[in-house]
Amino acid sequence: MDNLKTIRLGVIGAGRIGKIHAENLATRIPGASVSAIADPILSAAQETAERLHIPVACADYHQILDDADIDAVAICSSTDTHARLIVEAARTGKHIFCEKPIAYDLAKIDEALAAVEKAGVKLQIGFNRRFDPNFRRVRQMVRDGKIGDVHILRITSRDPAPPPIEYVKVSGGIFFDMTIHDFDMARYLSGDEVEEVYVAGGVRVDPRIGEAGDIDTAVVTLIFKGGAIGTIDNSRKAVYGYDQRVEVFGSEGMVTAFNNTPDSHVYSNAEGVHSAKPLYFFLERYMDSFIAEMKEFVESVQKDSPPPVTGADGRIPVMIAMAATRSYMEKRPVKLSEI
Amino acid sequence: MDNLKTIRLGVIGAGRIGKIHAENLATRIPGASVSAIADPILSAAQETAERLHIPVACADYHQILDDADIDAVAICSSTDTHARLIVEAARTGKHIFCEKPIAYDLAKIDEALAAVEKAGVKLQIGFNRRFDPNFRRVRQMVRDGKIGDVHILRITSRDPAPPPIEYVKVSGGIFFDMTIHDFDMARYLSGDEVEEVYVAGGVRVDPRIGEAGDIDTAVVTLIFKGGAIGTIDNSRKAVYGYDQRVEVFGSEGMVTAFNNTPDSHVYSNAEGVHSAKPLYFFLERYMDSFIAEMKEFVESVQKDSPPPVTGADGRIPVMIAMAATRSYMEKRPVKLSEI
Amino acid sequence: MDNLKTIRLGVIGAGRIGKIHAENLATRIPGASVSAIADPILSAAQETAERLHIPVACADYHQILDDADIDAVAICSSTDTHARLIVEAARTGKHIFCEKPIAYDLAKIDEALAAVEKAGVKLQIGFNRRFDPNFRRVRQMVRDGKIGDVHILRITSRDPAPPPIEYVKVSGGIFFDMTIHDFDMARYLSGDEVEEVYVAGGVRVDPRIGEAGDIDTAVVTLIFKGGAIGTIDNSRKAVYGYDQRVEVFGSEGMVTAFNNTPDSHVYSNAEGVHSAKPLYFFLERYMDSFIAEMKEFVESVQKDSPPPVTGADGRIPVMIAMAATRSYMEKRPVKLSEI
Amino acid sequence: MDNLKTIRLGVIGAGRIGKIHAENLATRIPGASVSAIADPILSAAQETAERLHIPVACADYHQILDDADIDAVAICSSTDTHARLIVEAARTGKHIFCEKPIAYDLAKIDEALAAVEKAGVKLQIGFNRRFDPNFRRVRQMVRDGKIGDVHILRITSRDPAPPPIEYVKVSGGIFFDMTIHDFDMARYLSGDEVEEVYVAGGVRVDPRIGEAGDIDTAVVTLIFKGGAIGTIDNSRKAVYGYDQRVEVFGSEGMVTAFNNTPDSHVYSNAEGVHSAKPLYFFLERYMDSFIAEMKEFVESVQKDSPPPVTGADGRIPVMIAMAATRSYMEKRPVKLSEI
Repeated sequence: MDNLKTIRLGVIGAGRIGKIHAENLATRIPGASVSAIADPILSAAQETAERLHIPVACADYHQILDDADIDAVAICSSTDTHARLIVEAARTGKHIFCEKPIAYDLAKIDEALAAVEKAGVKLQIGFNRRFDPNFRRVRQMVRDGKIGDVHILRITSRDPAPPPIEYVKVSGGIFFDMTIHDFDMARYLSGDEVEEVYVAGGVRVDPRIGEAGDIDTAVVTLIFKGGAIGTIDNSRKAVYGYDQRVEVFGSEGMVTAFNNTPDSHVYSNAEGVHSAKPLYFFLERYMDSFIAEMKEFVESVQKDSPPPVTGADGRIPVMIAMAATRSYMEKRPVKLSEI
Repeated sequence: MDNLKTIRLGVIGAGRIGKIHAENLATRIPGASVSAIADPILSAAQETAERLHIPVACADYHQILDDADIDAVAICSSTDTHARLIVEAARTGKHIFCEKPIAYDLAKIDEALAAVEKAGVKLQIGFNRRFDPNFRRVRQMVRDGKIGDVHILRITSRDPAPPPIEYVKVSGGIFFDMTIHDFDMARYLSGDEVEEVYVAGGVRVDPRIGEAGDIDTAVVTLIFKGGAIGTIDNSRKAVYGYDQRVEVFGSEGMVTAFNNTPDSHVYSNAEGVHSAKPLYFFLERYMDSFIAEMKEFVESVQKDSPPPVTGADGRIPVMIAMAATRSYMEKRPVKLSEI
Repeated sequence: MDNLKTIRLGVIGAGRIGKIHAENLATRIPGASVSAIADPILSAAQETAERLHIPVACADYHQILDDADIDAVAICSSTDTHARLIVEAARTGKHIFCEKPIAYDLAKIDEALAAVEKAGVKLQIGFNRRFDPNFRRVRQMVRDGKIGDVHILRITSRDPAPPPIEYVKVSGGIFFDMTIHDFDMARYLSGDEVEEVYVAGGVRVDPRIGEAGDIDTAVVTLIFKGGAIGTIDNSRKAVYGYDQRVEVFGSEGMVTAFNNTPDSHVYSNAEGVHSAKPLYFFLERYMDSFIAEMKEFVESVQKDSPPPVTGADGRIPVMIAMAATRSYMEKRPVKLSEI
Repeated sequence: MDNLKTIRLGVIGAGRIGKIHAENLATRIPGASVSAIADPILSAAQETAERLHIPVACADYHQILDDADIDAVAICSSTDTHARLIVEAARTGKHIFCEKPIAYDLAKIDEALAAVEKAGVKLQIGFNRRFDPNFRRVRQMVRDGKIGDVHILRITSRDPAPPPIEYVKVSGGIFFDMTIHDFDMARYLSGDEVEEVYVAGGVRVDPRIGEAGDIDTAVVTLIFKGGAIGTIDNSRKAVYGYDQRVEVFGSEGMVTAFNNTPDSHVYSNAEGVHSAKPLYFFLERYMDSFIAEMKEFVESVQKDSPPPVTGADGRIPVMIAMAATRSYMEKRPVKLSEI
């Protein structure tokens, strides 16, 4: 590690996820330092900068892009700015970590990826769940052939509570906002590509979600090129907490990953046997994965090796989300080749 | 119990399931006795009769139907004879326990149910899994409102090994032979009716199953009248044994039933932590349920109460299997109202 | 099996355990038939005989011993009669299954074992837990060397509720009545002999147990000849049900057996994750083992092979119980060689 | 938090545990900063200082004690120096976090505690396991009365591999080096004091440990003042990894804490069902607890509140270890009042 250059980063966006990445980069990632943080709400940038001893806080992200001493940026701003920021950052020669999704629009995504390719910089997309120890172990066992050929893949992904209705309205819909992580997980775990999508879904949790033009409950069937079949079930509200399980079944066996809990206690009394609920939500459940993804991004820049989640990995789930949306609207299976 | 009449039964069919029911009725069901057993292969009937001290063994089941001292029959013959035997038994005024499915053909089923209704006898269909303690407990919790409104229902149902190809050829296809139990379970657990079916499936286990015109791997999506969404995943071959799990998720919680194992040991060594595989197949896994369903049938006759699994319960899963078959053929969701 | 002689048994005692053995022998053990059942309370014998189609019910067990057509007896009477009945049954040449313990007195035990040896009949002691699938699997793994040399052995054995105080007064004390099963289990699982015993115990559950001269809570340390150390913890009252777990730890690994439950359901709601309590008590928990021990007894008579639990296996736990009693009284470790 | 003073610490000792505390204090504890680190091996102090941006590295800890700007010290040096360093630090008015045990000698401990009391500084002892989420939850349930009166307490504490023989020779013996954590846990979980100790133990893992005058396998029985009975089992070598479980059983229920694993995967194949081993050793298993104990120490200094683990909490386990050692030597139960 000692001979590797320290990577200086600028963080763009000081909202919830921006703060997490800034803190991890500043304190938990060997070989990384944060030179600046930008947010249109300057006070948010300043507060985080002060807490984490980041030298520069600014309202205008151009200050980061214009700083020749900064090697890489972490784009943590609102989704509608991602593609544009990727293009701008690439033009200044910065390596890029960008939160998912790149955009809701394939043309914008393609423009961003073209800019990255032209600039020859690295781009890593923030599909952090790939770095979760449970799912990583499942992937490893699939890749090592422990389950043989994949026949059936099951993903359960349920939030503890729906987001505010105002958020739902601008979220792009459940498939772009929530299931997109599961689409990525399906590709990651199977090592295969999705060919066709079928959606059964509805509004079961909160009628206001329906009024906002979205659904809150969905079961998605995926058909993979290699012949495996996947099923994803989503709900915006699991009263027992964040439910994040996967199962891969194949010719030689099955591997399942269960939820994580805050502790391992089991309590037995006259009523039954009781244990802890899953960790509440993604901040608790996936904290380790946020650190791990950033570690690998920094290493990829340091060692000039390919990033572990590529631009193509960011583009394909958007296509699957488009196919899912169409399947739900048209009540039929939709092929990705139709998109 | 003492004041209840002992029910005398005739068992029609001395194959695998006939032997099980004969033995349970002869030795484990209070208030039941077996008067006769019939099988076209007389030696099969004789062998079972001798072992279980059943007074009469015969090749022709009419001997049972003609015996005025026999109160009820258990129809355990091949599927193609079920509907005809129900009609004949009903005409002789015998109460009827019949293995699933009644027939592959709705007209035949309707004829059988009409005969039963006309004769005023009881008919119970052999959907034994409803009597399994795990699934019964799940149903009880759903019925008691413990999970609130049902949103998502998941059934995993995988056999340890495919049946012989000769059997596959006459089985009616995976949906009539295997998934039919899961269709019944979906209705039983949810307390709701299926409105629409979508199937993704293929041949992943053994190409000879495909050559026989069947598939061996399937993921079925069910849409219920009440808005819940169900998913069933089937495989003809799980190398780790018979996989029989269900999960019901709703507005107030989730209840899951896991597999049963031959013992509870857990072994930890330098390689990992190891425990027992699921019980091998349905004879091991569901033995208690075969006893329990027959106990309830006998009680229903003794007490003149409705049988716990009715003729309608036998008819509807056949309709769902038809819709599933059509969905697979036509690659689209199929409504039950189309059948 | 066909060529093996059917064994005709007489059951002595029609109390709780006598009824269980009579029913198992009459209906669930291939190759066994029950010719007679005796109980001083004639009506108890008659009721069981009628229910199970046993030809003879009598008040005087001599009627069984005098019946030359009876091959074997199952002694299920009160403990104070066991040794005498063994002697008498042996003299009439009957093979003997006897409930534990043989007696509270080594001289009586030795007299009984001598009579058995002289008569050349088989004697099996009713340590049924050896036939439980969980413990049998643990024993098998230890015997197969899967855990290497045994270092530590842990037994948890807790009843759901204390017996009536009247029973406690004549029970011989917790070590003879309850822990004796665990002493047998310690020998069975380790394949080793106990050399020394130390007891820490007290009255924690019910002061009336203390007034009756007994204790209700105990932690027993066992030192084995081979150097392993065992610990048994007992309570007369676990509010969550019958707690029967064992763990064997050694140089190559550990094997643990957990409790059995009536079903496998897991319920998750806003309060936590909940599952079923252990099976309530020994009748539920050990029913399979009662059948299995009797099957092996019958086979041992049929095949003239050694019974799986010998007279010596019945004697040694009594010695350990004596050492435990003395350790508790004298507040010091006691060697078995002192007994 | 904002109004609380930042606490400046000096870390004494840059060995394994010193490095952990230095890193946690420098990067993960809000309100703490590390001003200096001392180690007789200056290069060790320098290396850690450089890595963590600690301004001062020195060979002589007096440099820390003499620095008036330093508020508190973390004593992470070898055990034989703890008591003396506590005395010296107290005299300079520094608050003190000290690794366990304070000393092997009660006179030295009493001298240290007297110095602390006289100086009016805070002293917290490094029994980090109290801050582990599993054990903390168990303690909370016991304290909240969820299990009623405590009857039986069980602790399993097994290392994955024995320490080097050179370390064993100076470790003070298994009870001072390893079981001392379990003695503290027994007091913490029960909320009660130990009255009597009995040990059964031996050399089962490695004869060289015996040659060094120590044992490697032990089962300790504890009798508590309130009548509960505890049992601790220790081994220096569990091939499956670090085994850290506790169970508290009482009049109203039982609460158990199981091991932690690196991930939640379960793999089923033709051989069985397999999952991950426990986390390897204390660094992996207890990392969170090292952070949490230090957070609470810093808060206790900031808020002038009592530290969560006191000097008395450091003294009593040493007494229990002494009683355990005597019990093993004299092969009898030993009362703490004898020490």
